[in-house]
Amino acid sequence: MKRNERTGGKVYLVGAGPGDPELLTLKAVKVLARADVVMIDDLVDRRVLEHAPNARVVEVGKRGGCKSTPQEFIERLMVRLASRGKIVARVKGGDPFVFGRGGEEALALARAGVECEVIPGITAGIGVPAALGIPVTHRGLARGVTFVTGHTRDGSEPDWAALARTDTTLVIYMGMQRIAHITAALQAAGMVATLPAVAIQNGTMDNEQHAIATLGTLAVAAQKAKLRSPALIVIGEVVALAKVEADDRALKRTA
Amino acid sequence: MKRNERTGGKVYLVGAGPGDPELLTLKAVKVLARADVVMIDDLVDRRVLEHAPNARVVEVGKRGGCKSTPQEFIERLMVRLASRGKIVARVKGGDPFVFGRGGEEALALARAGVECEVIPGITAGIGVPAALGIPVTHRGLARGVTFVTGHTRDGSEPDWAALARTDTTLVIYMGMQRIAHITAALQAAGMVATLPAVAIQNGTMDNEQHAIATLGTLAVAAQKAKLRSPALIVIGEVVALAKVEADDRALKRTA
Repeated sequence: MKRNERTGGKVYLVGAGPGDPELLTLKAVKVLARADVVMIDDLVDRRVLEHAPNARVVEVGKRGGCKSTPQEFIERLMVRLASRGKIVARVKGGDPFVFGRGGEEALALARAGVECEVIPGITAGIGVPAALGIPVTHRGLARGVTFVTGHTRDGSEPDWAALARTDTTLVIYMGMQRIAHITAALQAAGMVATLPAVAIQNGTMDNEQHAIATLGTLAVAAQKAKLRSPALIVIGEVVALAKVEADDRALKRTA
Repeated sequence: MKRNERTGGKVYLVGAGPGDPELLTLKAVKVLARADVVMIDDLVDRRVLEHAPNARVVEVGKRGGCKSTPQEFIERLMVRLASRGKIVARVKGGDPFVFGRGGEEALALARAGVECEVIPGITAGIGVPAALGIPVTHRGLARGVTFVTGHTRDGSEPDWAALARTDTTLVIYMGMQRIAHITAALQAAGMVATLPAVAIQNGTMDNEQHAIATLGTLAVAAQKAKLRSPALIVIGEVVALAKVEADDRALKRTA
């Protein structure tokens, strides 16, 4: 018998979406209202906690580089709480299963015999460009869209040459610290320097900032605009459809 | 002056998510509550209309192959309604900017001087595998995820060889009618026949059906399971993480 079947505890891996707290789903709100404990990531807007007025809140910061809660501690805590019968909402930015370690947490819970359900969220790679008017799969301009990360655990890199040949819009998560390297690698792989590209920080939020440039100029443009991690990089013809004319401040920030 | 600035009309391109009506966002619900007119796609669950009790509902079916509303008619109607000052919620399955023609509609509205805002939705390519426990970007198993369509307007095809080399999970929308051709092309491009693969119909819904197989056996497995369009195809090591043990019926349907 699974542990949770004895105790009634359960963990929900909840996606909070790309930033704007109104991009939470109804399902996420329902889970938050029922939760005994909310374990919330550093980068998630605290306004989502308004939906969980009765829950104990555990902050589990995971900001790249700085002090952060070890993954193992997070997993052990979830297991312990669920084993005591608690309903746990583990709230992550974006979608739990897109570069969110949600898969690792789901496996840890399964190994411990704890029931787990995933509540998907709007991933930044779609919602953040959309807020700028960029349709990532626009017909005639892209075959589709690819999401990768700028860095990997083992220090290895995506096959930029293969990615460059797919004719899909390329969305790079967590690529800001290596933006000069990545944009150079993509050009070496055959992508043209004039390809439209954008880097976006705090997408969908009031404090959103972005730099629209080309593949060849993006690294310098992002630096001039003082963009910092976490930010999203989008590369492809579809970036030319961005509706920047509506936002004078954005235009001024643009390279 | 833009037309909408005179009239106060506006069009929201609203993503309804992959199927389950609880995967609507709070922002989408707010827009539906304010809408004078809801233009809803055929494949969207009608329960989303409960959030728009006062709106006039226009059905704009776009089921592949069968009778469907011409895209041009949809665009003209949106422009006409907004020009008369109406708040229009154009509701689409999944996300409006992921294979949803949302980009085309946004451009048509911009050309007509009509204000337009995109409300993103959970795209099927993330939410549908997640409901089966499949984390599409699981570390160590995939570099990321790529979304493409199985068919294109001009009859041309994605560069399967390039896609096979990216080491990303491959998610194919609208690929069901050409599943034998696609899985053969991917094997010819170097993907191994034993790679886990799944086809999923009505994902996230009570009437969900799927066939878990391998790249080499998926076409036959999907046929045996009588899966029909629209369905999603997911190919990659991450499919091995599917939690089918919880669902006996799913296991029986599995090849």
